[in-house]
Amino acid sequence: MARYVFGVDLGGTTAKIGLLTESGEKVDFWEVKTRTENNGEFILSDIADAIRAKMKEKGIDDSDVIGAGIGVPGAVNVDGLCYQAVNLGWEKYNVVNEFHSKLKLPVKAGNDANVAALGEAWKGGGKGYPNMLLVTLGTGVGGGIINEGKILTGSKGSGGEIGHIHLVDDEPDACGCGNHGCFEQYASATGAMRLAKRVLAATDEDSVLRGKEFECKDVFDAAKVGDKVAMDIAKKYGYFLGKGIAITASVVNPEIIVLGGGVSKAGEMLFDLLKPSFEEFVFPGCKDVKFALAKLGNDAGVYGAAKMLLY
Amino acid sequence: MARYVFGVDLGGTTAKIGLLTESGEKVDFWEVKTRTENNGEFILSDIADAIRAKMKEKGIDDSDVIGAGIGVPGAVNVDGLCYQAVNLGWEKYNVVNEFHSKLKLPVKAGNDANVAALGEAWKGGGKGYPNMLLVTLGTGVGGGIINEGKILTGSKGSGGEIGHIHLVDDEPDACGCGNHGCFEQYASATGAMRLAKRVLAATDEDSVLRGKEFECKDVFDAAKVGDKVAMDIAKKYGYFLGKGIAITASVVNPEIIVLGGGVSKAGEMLFDLLKPSFEEFVFPGCKDVKFALAKLGNDAGVYGAAKMLLY
Repeated sequence: MARYVFGVDLGGTTAKIGLLTESGEKVDFWEVKTRTENNGEFILSDIADAIRAKMKEKGIDDSDVIGAGIGVPGAVNVDGLCYQAVNLGWEKYNVVNEFHSKLKLPVKAGNDANVAALGEAWKGGGKGYPNMLLVTLGTGVGGGIINEGKILTGSKGSGGEIGHIHLVDDEPDACGCGNHGCFEQYASATGAMRLAKRVLAATDEDSVLRGKEFECKDVFDAAKVGDKVAMDIAKKYGYFLGKGIAITASVVNPEIIVLGGGVSKAGEMLFDLLKPSFEEFVFPGCKDVKFALAKLGNDAGVYGAAKMLLY
Repeated sequence: MARYVFGVDLGGTTAKIGLLTESGEKVDFWEVKTRTENNGEFILSDIADAIRAKMKEKGIDDSDVIGAGIGVPGAVNVDGLCYQAVNLGWEKYNVVNEFHSKLKLPVKAGNDANVAALGEAWKGGGKGYPNMLLVTLGTGVGGGIINEGKILTGSKGSGGEIGHIHLVDDEPDACGCGNHGCFEQYASATGAMRLAKRVLAATDEDSVLRGKEFECKDVFDAAKVGDKVAMDIAKKYGYFLGKGIAITASVVNPEIIVLGGGVSKAGEMLFDLLKPSFEEFVFPGCKDVKFALAKLGNDAGVYGAAKMLLY
């Protein structure tokens, strides 16, 4: 008898749901709308209903299901308490208790970035490495630490929130978190754009980036074809990326560091850009580490959510 | 029938050994000499013999012993492989395999700083908190991360080696690890003395520290009684201590941070000194944390080594 597990990646507009075998084979992936009205009180029952409907459709009994995991856009502690999920309308909400009361199956919950890290460690860029650091380079910088195959949750679910380690003194601009000089102010897509504007303003050298609207992707594309200003920006970006990763790696000593998120589409050039500063700043005992790109894209959270049930 | 566990804190000159009940009551603590000749090949058999002799003396059977844990002055991975322990003469040595072959009882091994952290989490300053960060302020800065009650080992046993996170740009002096600007260059006892010399050189203000030999302890003692120069040094020290702890806490989100090592004898004034920069730099989601002083002194390693058998 095949045994199944469900994984849910819950976002502010949709929840991605996956039905997988316990060895991680994809059986069915689909989405349901996230209804945020009334402080998001329907969200978990909608998902539970969707899972129950899928079980009926596929003829899957309760006894064939190991459980369902869910990744939530907010900090979640080991007891399933979500402190706040602004995009869902939740304040202090025990996701495990609520979801379990609706689904009547074993349930686990975690922060979405941490859960995505677990997915990448299970089936993605970090496959085969029980000690992994995922660095997600998007609008912000997120992260997840996988320690001996499990999520490092921390005491209030903020384990792996590496976007907010202090990296630069004397940064005049405030980070979204209120601090100044956070890693994500330099290593996010937004950070790369800030660096780009600063570099462009500091030189009058010609560049394909000058005098037009451009996006983060354009910077790396221009750097790849040898635009000197773009290369300068990319090098500066790599310096901060490598430095922030070095500090994090010196704390948790991962075996592999996986880069995900929109900026990671720049590909393997990122490794060349970050390695000089990574090697300059990392503790020598933590220097021997592999780098890889995330592989699961938007499915990482579904895989990771399911994997929580298989610890 | 009482059940027992042994803990060993192995140093370059002596090994402290403890016989404890499984609830952590001290039955007998003693020491044996560490024989480092022949690349330390006698060390583990000496300890095994000492444990066997103690069992005989106390009339303890194999069936009454859960096992023996050992903390080693070097990085040790989850399989018990010690990469190097300079003070013992060991190079790539599987401590678990070797110790087990001699003792014929269940055995675990870890890095001494990490094991001491586990001891403080079990019976010391972090008692009752499954997510703890120990920061050991001695000649260097060591550390240990306790995650859900267990040591965060990392892939090569360098988890929690927080003394070498990069903290300060443009540091001209090299750290013992070869890098520049490591946390321990500022927050160790040695670092406090460096800061003291820099502050004294930068002012001609009178101070009890001026014109004589002094130690790290004298700086904090003088600060406590209002010596203005000593207070400046202590504040600078606290700034770096708080900053390094803030960065580490933002990665692993501990519930409690325990300060140990020689400098921690300065006591609770350290909390006042470090809190302004801690609060400035920590990720807001990780700000809600307790601070405490280590309680077990030199016994921490023995308790923690024993506790590894009780996971």
